[in-house]
Amino acid sequence: VVTAARLRQPRLILLAALWLVAARPAAQTRSVGTVVERHVEAHQAAIVRELVDLLRIPNVAADRDGIRRNAEHLVAMLGRRGMAAELLETSGNPLVYGERRVPGAVRTVLFYAHYDGQPVVPAAWKQQDPFSPVLLEGRLEDGARERPLDSVTRVEPDWRLYARSASDDKAPIVALCAALDALAGAGLGPTVNVRIVLDGEEEAGSRSLVPAVRRYRDKLSADLLVVIDGPTHSSGRPTVAFGARGIQPLELTVYGPRTGVHSGNYGNWAPNPALALAHLLASMKDERGRVLVEGFYDGIAPLSPEEARLIDEVPDDAALMLKTFGLAQPEVPGRSLQASLQIPTLNIRGLASAHVGAGARTIVPDRAVAALDIRLVKETPADAMLAKLRRHIELRGYRLIDRDPDDATRSAHARLARLTSVPGTNAFRTPPDSPEGRLVTDGLARVHGEPPVRIRTLGGTVPIAPFVETLGFPAVLVPTVNFDNNQHEENENLRLGHFFKSIVTMAGLLTM
Amino acid sequence: VVTAARLRQPRLILLAALWLVAARPAAQTRSVGTVVERHVEAHQAAIVRELVDLLRIPNVAADRDGIRRNAEHLVAMLGRRGMAAELLETSGNPLVYGERRVPGAVRTVLFYAHYDGQPVVPAAWKQQDPFSPVLLEGRLEDGARERPLDSVTRVEPDWRLYARSASDDKAPIVALCAALDALAGAGLGPTVNVRIVLDGEEEAGSRSLVPAVRRYRDKLSADLLVVIDGPTHSSGRPTVAFGARGIQPLELTVYGPRTGVHSGNYGNWAPNPALALAHLLASMKDERGRVLVEGFYDGIAPLSPEEARLIDEVPDDAALMLKTFGLAQPEVPGRSLQASLQIPTLNIRGLASAHVGAGARTIVPDRAVAALDIRLVKETPADAMLAKLRRHIELRGYRLIDRDPDDATRSAHARLARLTSVPGTNAFRTPPDSPEGRLVTDGLARVHGEPPVRIRTLGGTVPIAPFVETLGFPAVLVPTVNFDNNQHEENENLRLGHFFKSIVTMAGLLTM
Repeated sequence: VVTAARLRQPRLILLAALWLVAARPAAQTRSVGTVVERHVEAHQAAIVRELVDLLRIPNVAADRDGIRRNAEHLVAMLGRRGMAAELLETSGNPLVYGERRVPGAVRTVLFYAHYDGQPVVPAAWKQQDPFSPVLLEGRLEDGARERPLDSVTRVEPDWRLYARSASDDKAPIVALCAALDALAGAGLGPTVNVRIVLDGEEEAGSRSLVPAVRRYRDKLSADLLVVIDGPTHSSGRPTVAFGARGIQPLELTVYGPRTGVHSGNYGNWAPNPALALAHLLASMKDERGRVLVEGFYDGIAPLSPEEARLIDEVPDDAALMLKTFGLAQPEVPGRSLQASLQIPTLNIRGLASAHVGAGARTIVPDRAVAALDIRLVKETPADAMLAKLRRHIELRGYRLIDRDPDDATRSAHARLARLTSVPGTNAFRTPPDSPEGRLVTDGLARVHGEPPVRIRTLGGTVPIAPFVETLGFPAVLVPTVNFDNNQHEENENLRLGHFFKSIVTMAGLLTM
Repeated sequence: VVTAARLRQPRLILLAALWLVAARPAAQTRSVGTVVERHVEAHQAAIVRELVDLLRIPNVAADRDGIRRNAEHLVAMLGRRGMAAELLETSGNPLVYGERRVPGAVRTVLFYAHYDGQPVVPAAWKQQDPFSPVLLEGRLEDGARERPLDSVTRVEPDWRLYARSASDDKAPIVALCAALDALAGAGLGPTVNVRIVLDGEEEAGSRSLVPAVRRYRDKLSADLLVVIDGPTHSSGRPTVAFGARGIQPLELTVYGPRTGVHSGNYGNWAPNPALALAHLLASMKDERGRVLVEGFYDGIAPLSPEEARLIDEVPDDAALMLKTFGLAQPEVPGRSLQASLQIPTLNIRGLASAHVGAGARTIVPDRAVAALDIRLVKETPADAMLAKLRRHIELRGYRLIDRDPDDATRSAHARLARLTSVPGTNAFRTPPDSPEGRLVTDGLARVHGEPPVRIRTLGGTVPIAPFVETLGFPAVLVPTVNFDNNQHEENENLRLGHFFKSIVTMAGLLTM
């Protein structure tokens, strides 16, 4: 489908056509998938063992010793695959970097993953030690039996490995290595120049990443960034996501009397900040799901028929989701989950004013607070959205202040509010039908023999803006693990069927 | 001022005229005030000592032993004033009852006070023991010096007695006794039949009072109930309040997804209960202070010119109140505090949904809760208001449920809310220009030589509905203690100037 809008971009189409021709060497079609599947089948135990060895090295970002051991272990793993591997030191944990130039390759792909994991509460884990991987014949919740890891020679797709970072995010790193092995074993190799960067503090906010990306700009430059992190679509099908929403967290406080006052003695006389907050919040978003802040949707074009088809193709099970979450209907009846993710949100994530329940007192409260978050799309950067929200509040007669009001401020302004924010993370989105977008889609389709689930944008936020904004090249996400992996929680796990399939996925990415 | 409305009630006017003639024996004009003032002047030390002796008996409602000792002590005190005194047993703490019939008296006044006090945290008190009264030469907060109590012979009006129940509510009981003594000392006596009932569990909710009022209906019947409790107007002038608002506490819960869901993954798709609650609350009351619940103000007539004049005469200091509370203006600019108290409120006393501040998480919350209270006026009884609020919520498309929703309920209804309530307390109001209202006003004016501050209705709630509703006779409140008495808190205190003046007030009530 070529839309009218696309026809106005002849150069883009030409570029896409050239890229697609270059991207499809005759020898590497579905046969790559078959080759890799066979390799995985033959080397199951060794591949799992390599992952288990990596999982045994504790990797909480604050554990500098463990982090350093992980980093050095990873340098060695990449080196064994013929990559020039090294540590890139940063102000925080080191980046692990590897590069492999491929003669004749016309483009360079940078793979991003992270080797640190979420903090752990060991006692909350089945095995009491999240860095002692355990193999179960299925899900822990279903009472699956344990298998001794060290003597295992064959595993089943439904078996699961329980350990911190099993799925988030060490499995994709090992899968990428296994894919390189599988290609080498068949006398094949990557068709693109490969760069790999492994973040050592993603779960701690990747604070060193922005300066490091600037510092190592030459090593980290590429034609395309591929983030190998996160779970596939819940259907389990290979998945590619072309973008992710950003986020701007906020907190809004509306002020009433200096202290709570008796609701009998002063009710109807002392202005109630909880009611004022209710009106202010209600003024921001109507009951039909539309944000009323002026300019909130500026720059967002309606989806083209092609884009609409793309999001309609995502095999979400709306009825199951509603049942799971105990909902009669979504916020906008008839609008799908994917359609809902294409536009920014204004979400109330918390409310507080005085007390409810047994602790409630009969007062007019002194203040009312709403914790908010704006999920951003590419067209709506954080700073601009923050400015629009501030203006909305001011237009409703509020004096915006940056600390609790003093006496003079209280006397001068009937409506006082404070809006506090932390730095936001912008969204990114690579056009699915851009040359890069098509390359990844086709790469995955070719090795798997079926098209991947294509997600135009993830609803959540991925902190890769430093790459996209600083280095200026496009990015896609290729998530590979099971969606029910207990990500960030105790008993994080990896379904081995997903893991083995992800090796095929990685081979597809290496041979785009 | 006789309004058109009043002219339509000739019988009422006739009754009022008859009552007023009967109420003004020639001998008892301002001279009663002078007589009592002289008596108080001459017997200061003895009067204070009688109060101190009573304060030394611990009186927390849960302390059955202490309560019983108080009750027996009070029976003796009343007996010494020539009253037929006894305990009226209830399902809880006993009522202390006293009666004195006056030959020739045409009406009976029932005085209500309470002899129990709020619970105490002894360590929080200056003297570490709230039942060991301490005499200070002024306010504790101002560093006033202590005077030895047992050797005191003269006191100053600004001196204060610090003890639990010094002001709430033992002082009015002792003042009433002292007024009887003062009248007797001058060869005078009450001109009305006097009945006194002293509640032993007011601070614990007066739960035994409703059945007790029914059981002792004959003893507790009267032409007028006078509640002697609470602080005077902040100006310190003698005060009479003709009514008090009631209260209906409520809690409103609006439901979202079964558990909080990720605000990125599901934002714009999962309905947000905090936003729904904001809209629902905003729909209930506008930003100009008007409640929008249908029929909320039904039955409330505009104030007559006479009533408007009455509330305008209350010497509230609006500028001082705004400054004290840190407000630029009241909820309805230009509307006085007293005007605000004449109509019911719909007050949000608390809000809660997920978390704000450091604990905030990026989720769509599972529920949002508002704690509410409706302050009632005489025309708006609790049950009817509750029904109107329920109807308002239902008219906005909510299914009202009485517990957390089950799966079937969640699937069937997009809007789910729960409204929970405890039994309300109704308002009461005696027309200030009714015979009873005028009797009290004139009685106080006569003994003090100045008109009392007349409060058409207190904003807060007084639990005397059992009398008004069960026995069907009118009530007024005559508060007498200093407004800064630390009521219900540690270091409760009584300003002796207020106490001595209250003896004159009691004499006025006894000789109406």
